[in-house]
Amino acid sequence: MSKGTVVLAYSGGLDTSCILVWLKEEGYDVITYLANIGQDEDFEAARKKAESLGAKKVFIEDLRAEFVEDFIWPAVQANAVYEDRYLMGTAVARPCIGRRQVEIARREGAQFVSHGATGKGNDQIRFELTCYALYPEVKIIAPWRIPEFYNRFRGRIDLMEYAQSHAPDDLYLMTKNPEDSPSTPDLLEIEFKNGVPVKVTNVKEGKSKDSPLDIFSYLNEIGGKHGVGRIDIVENRFIGMKSRGIYETPGGTILLQAHLDIETFTMDKEVRRIKQGLSIRFSELVYNGFWYSPECDFVRHCIAKSQENVEGKVQLSVFKGHVYILGRESPKSLYNEELVSMDVQGDYDPCDASGFIRINAVRLREHHRLQGFSSTKQ
Amino acid sequence: MSKGTVVLAYSGGLDTSCILVWLKEEGYDVITYLANIGQDEDFEAARKKAESLGAKKVFIEDLRAEFVEDFIWPAVQANAVYEDRYLMGTAVARPCIGRRQVEIARREGAQFVSHGATGKGNDQIRFELTCYALYPEVKIIAPWRIPEFYNRFRGRIDLMEYAQSHAPDDLYLMTKNPEDSPSTPDLLEIEFKNGVPVKVTNVKEGKSKDSPLDIFSYLNEIGGKHGVGRIDIVENRFIGMKSRGIYETPGGTILLQAHLDIETFTMDKEVRRIKQGLSIRFSELVYNGFWYSPECDFVRHCIAKSQENVEGKVQLSVFKGHVYILGRESPKSLYNEELVSMDVQGDYDPCDASGFIRINAVRLREHHRLQGFSSTKQ
Amino acid sequence: MSKGTVVLAYSGGLDTSCILVWLKEEGYDVITYLANIGQDEDFEAARKKAESLGAKKVFIEDLRAEFVEDFIWPAVQANAVYEDRYLMGTAVARPCIGRRQVEIARREGAQFVSHGATGKGNDQIRFELTCYALYPEVKIIAPWRIPEFYNRFRGRIDLMEYAQSHAPDDLYLMTKNPEDSPSTPDLLEIEFKNGVPVKVTNVKEGKSKDSPLDIFSYLNEIGGKHGVGRIDIVENRFIGMKSRGIYETPGGTILLQAHLDIETFTMDKEVRRIKQGLSIRFSELVYNGFWYSPECDFVRHCIAKSQENVEGKVQLSVFKGHVYILGRESPKSLYNEELVSMDVQGDYDPCDASGFIRINAVRLREHHRLQGFSSTKQ
Amino acid sequence: MSKGTVVLAYSGGLDTSCILVWLKEEGYDVITYLANIGQDEDFEAARKKAESLGAKKVFIEDLRAEFVEDFIWPAVQANAVYEDRYLMGTAVARPCIGRRQVEIARREGAQFVSHGATGKGNDQIRFELTCYALYPEVKIIAPWRIPEFYNRFRGRIDLMEYAQSHAPDDLYLMTKNPEDSPSTPDLLEIEFKNGVPVKVTNVKEGKSKDSPLDIFSYLNEIGGKHGVGRIDIVENRFIGMKSRGIYETPGGTILLQAHLDIETFTMDKEVRRIKQGLSIRFSELVYNGFWYSPECDFVRHCIAKSQENVEGKVQLSVFKGHVYILGRESPKSLYNEELVSMDVQGDYDPCDASGFIRINAVRLREHHRLQGFSSTKQ
Repeated sequence: MSKGTVVLAYSGGLDTSCILVWLKEEGYDVITYLANIGQDEDFEAARKKAESLGAKKVFIEDLRAEFVEDFIWPAVQANAVYEDRYLMGTAVARPCIGRRQVEIARREGAQFVSHGATGKGNDQIRFELTCYALYPEVKIIAPWRIPEFYNRFRGRIDLMEYAQSHAPDDLYLMTKNPEDSPSTPDLLEIEFKNGVPVKVTNVKEGKSKDSPLDIFSYLNEIGGKHGVGRIDIVENRFIGMKSRGIYETPGGTILLQAHLDIETFTMDKEVRRIKQGLSIRFSELVYNGFWYSPECDFVRHCIAKSQENVEGKVQLSVFKGHVYILGRESPKSLYNEELVSMDVQGDYDPCDASGFIRINAVRLREHHRLQGFSSTKQ
Repeated sequence: MSKGTVVLAYSGGLDTSCILVWLKEEGYDVITYLANIGQDEDFEAARKKAESLGAKKVFIEDLRAEFVEDFIWPAVQANAVYEDRYLMGTAVARPCIGRRQVEIARREGAQFVSHGATGKGNDQIRFELTCYALYPEVKIIAPWRIPEFYNRFRGRIDLMEYAQSHAPDDLYLMTKNPEDSPSTPDLLEIEFKNGVPVKVTNVKEGKSKDSPLDIFSYLNEIGGKHGVGRIDIVENRFIGMKSRGIYETPGGTILLQAHLDIETFTMDKEVRRIKQGLSIRFSELVYNGFWYSPECDFVRHCIAKSQENVEGKVQLSVFKGHVYILGRESPKSLYNEELVSMDVQGDYDPCDASGFIRINAVRLREHHRLQGFSSTKQ
Repeated sequence: MSKGTVVLAYSGGLDTSCILVWLKEEGYDVITYLANIGQDEDFEAARKKAESLGAKKVFIEDLRAEFVEDFIWPAVQANAVYEDRYLMGTAVARPCIGRRQVEIARREGAQFVSHGATGKGNDQIRFELTCYALYPEVKIIAPWRIPEFYNRFRGRIDLMEYAQSHAPDDLYLMTKNPEDSPSTPDLLEIEFKNGVPVKVTNVKEGKSKDSPLDIFSYLNEIGGKHGVGRIDIVENRFIGMKSRGIYETPGGTILLQAHLDIETFTMDKEVRRIKQGLSIRFSELVYNGFWYSPECDFVRHCIAKSQENVEGKVQLSVFKGHVYILGRESPKSLYNEELVSMDVQGDYDPCDASGFIRINAVRLREHHRLQGFSSTKQ
Repeated sequence: MSKGTVVLAYSGGLDTSCILVWLKEEGYDVITYLANIGQDEDFEAARKKAESLGAKKVFIEDLRAEFVEDFIWPAVQANAVYEDRYLMGTAVARPCIGRRQVEIARREGAQFVSHGATGKGNDQIRFELTCYALYPEVKIIAPWRIPEFYNRFRGRIDLMEYAQSHAPDDLYLMTKNPEDSPSTPDLLEIEFKNGVPVKVTNVKEGKSKDSPLDIFSYLNEIGGKHGVGRIDIVENRFIGMKSRGIYETPGGTILLQAHLDIETFTMDKEVRRIKQGLSIRFSELVYNGFWYSPECDFVRHCIAKSQENVEGKVQLSVFKGHVYILGRESPKSLYNEELVSMDVQGDYDPCDASGFIRINAVRLREHHRLQGFSSTKQ
């Protein structure tokens, strides 16, 4: 008799295959679920493998468009960066993958979900918080945290994966080594509306893309070709360990630079300061797995509000691992060439600056003068 | 009869020369002061020019070492960046220049100081707040905010400066165009102690530098050679205008990347989060001209405290406009390879992660379950 | 020939009467405008006085309802408090008064507005930023900053006002001395919806109010009767001076306590933390006069969003200068008596707390263990 | 044979007595430890009870002075308040109690510590994080999270404790009901140095106290006599549940008001803003149990730095549940009566305010004017 049905997030790789087999041994019916978020994978091979290992049903879901629109675009609006450097490709993917998994579990009447994330990482948290938030009564089976499983399998999987992971050419899948990248730049123009890209044009080639998925894929392609977005960092995991990470985010890096530029061009200075604080919070929430939480909903809403006037075009060049902003234009620009010009007086009276400075100095002068001073009574 | 003595921040250029002549016409004795903070300048020619235009005294002060140690190093500790992109070379220089000017004014018994900063910019504020903070009773003469001056001189100076400023090759003085930069990287190792660099080594050449000024100059040289640190941005001035700025900060860009790396490696996660907030404040304060203020003193103190364990070595490569971090090592590292390893269990029990996640989910599940729920009374 | 038309914010008192006369002497047509925001004033006497002093037109505007709904209610949603203590009655009134003044100026074709605020205070800033924000081309005449005016009038007005201001009984206009207040409390129940009060009931008397203006007036009455909301503080003005202020905010104090209570009862913990930061910003913006600014619009929008579920009833007692919260109930409560009970296990497994704590301790234990430890390389 | 030695935080009450007996049954040697932090307790009776129940050793430790100096004083410097209302008496006591417990465990060679905190509360976390931080290899036995224990004892303890907890008069132990409190106020003067009280004087009685413990005890006494510091709140526990708490903090409430006052009087405005943010962090850290953490060390250091000039005397009255600030004086006051006076011009030129306001309006006017405006290119 079955213990119930598990929807397993299946990768087609060795470790989730072991999990599939083990879950069956333990007496569960197993439905495998493989999300296509744009990774390079032979999905049909994975389907056959799952079926041959005894999966009761196999779901292969194309989430590419919703991943870009519902998850990457809000991260672009936020300029989401964790600890000043990490662009969080993985962190943003987890809630997208988990959301569909929970939908399948509900639809198929499965009380359990399972995944192959390890017991020391962030992904287990991102995955499980998504599940609990969207399906509070779900039971989660995390084999890498179950001694019966990991004591039995760890050694063998380690051995197999050792070979793969020690093949350095595989480390970067999307980006070329900048030293081997083309010696002429690509020039792009990215158009934004409400803080998200609506069109990208390769200026020299005249080619353009305008669906979210096409835009993002094209930026990944161009960024990858020029070796953009590689980082080697040490980061702080949610559970409090430091870990080393090597990441590549070619399209995300181009978008971050372009969005920062158009945002500063069109957003009020003080709104920008407040939004910057919200963005740091957003990044921490997403990194820690709280995409589906009341606070992340709230922050996303506030950030989206801030983007209402973030529109216009940014021109940039991509070359040898770096993105260079060349210019920008916008119907909502707050840049006023006349106001800032040294040659045009206009409405601005430079004498006002004297008063501004002197009032700002009131406090500084008091501080200086009263240091070590006598008593006042109030 | 003299109206008093003015210490004028003199650049040797046309506009401060006009100011010098005008101040004399207005009846002041003028002492010129030219700070050497590392710019490319013929200081002796400037001295002769000042003397020939009637300066009563001429001070040319070599501030290069104190600029690096007292101003750039704290900015490195802070990872100081304004509005996510601007490294604030100029903003950091003003309080350094102003401090010495005020010292000269006090020593020479001058009641006035003057400068050539325009009436719409940030530099007037940075300069004057420094003066008011350190010499509260000083009187400031800002000719570009005085109608008698600017109505008379603006046209002529504009004409002269037009030629210079429209010579695009001059725009970047320190950095090569990345497209023309060497096609082999330089490999550097930077050693930090208390969050500031104490040594830089060119790994291939075996060459190293270990005084603050030498380190910073060398990083400017290497960064410049590889076209690192060029940006074209729109920024928000303190006075509320947006302006376009084109900047180059080759050494600063290398140091920012290296310091971010060693800091994350050695600093506790939560200390880092708090320090990140203080760094943003610090950057705003410095940009706005408040280096000498009680709050900036306070923030600098706090940031310096956070740097006590920020030590170790960062290896990086500089190539075609980009800085790549290659690795890091530190006696104060909080990175624990064994703890984070998937193969070593050690003290860490993966089952704890289940509890951690489930407790984090308590709130999320409540939120989900109680949405649209009945009344409770307390 | 007239220099143009000025709309003067007129109080009926000596100083704005002097301003009225002086503006006419200076050649302006003067329209006086007196806002009724609930102060105790003989408005008809003020009208006659203005007319007799030569006002071309006199506007007396009842802004009481819009003051409560458009200005006080958002401050209640924000828990607006400046520097931990000041509830900002005055700061919130200025943009309300200024908004109507600008409307009148536009309607009457006046190019000028004027006011009687002094040159060292906050009110001049609040008033003028409101005018500039809503009527950018307006010209502002601030007589207390014009030497011709203040050198002539200061002495005489000082003399007259000395008598009034040194009559201590007048200091508090709305609140009784708590020592003289009733020795039995009033019990109130305040009902909130979207974070603003929609009804107040005096529990013992059975009396209730449900329009915004009636609610606020009634809370002022009850709070005043019991001496609630008096403070004697030193505060930091926007211009950087410290000043002493003695304030009374009876209704506002009751609402702050009640709103804090219902908010914590119905708002997610982490949303609350983010909203707390926004509230501090909001308070600073309002205090400094930036009610009408893009950033204050943005913050108000975000705060309003956070209030969507802030509804329910708070029971409280008002007695001898203090407000005591007695209980609360809400259809949107996130308080779950069963979950928190020590007697009910339910879904919550206490063992999870062990894992939660141990994971939170990972970082602390590392910190302790690695203090003074050996080198790691990555 | 013993399983080892446990140091048990013992209260003398029923539940920790049960734990003591159960630990012995389970095969441990038990050392009981009872901290005196000022609570009303018959310590000798507790000692006898522990001995009679089989404790191997009994430690009764007077921590009152170190509790005030090392824990309450930093909280006073911080104006520590959780969620705008809770003064955290308990949260501050836990690290004090835990620190000594760990010292005893190390000294006595005990590998285990134990406590009677429940599995849903904050205290378990505060207690255990303290232990892990200071004694990383310690093993913690939390019986209320161990099914064998709580399934056996819960019912019986509940029964016994029901009677006690449902005796409403016991709810408040330190404070009188304000309705029954004296009808004449006590007038106090509290003197601060480095942000902590160094003396309290009862102005009418002429009586004063000047050791930390005496000061704090006296303020508890006076506050208690007048019914100060009672609150009934719903709060958010660290584990994400909302719980209702009824607290009394008479001395802490007086100190908070007095410290807020002297701090604003002597601290620069902008330092205060930054410190306010740090204080909120500090409060959250302490509430959540992270007193002994690198980030709390860091924040405490920063806050202590901010207090260097926080000195002077505050006069206040305590009456019917409320604290009224009456005045303050300080040798380090930044309040400058002359500067703020409307009658004294001095160094301050009111015309500067015009420039200050107009520059602050630049951005607001741009925002207004450019709304819906045409394209700019940069």
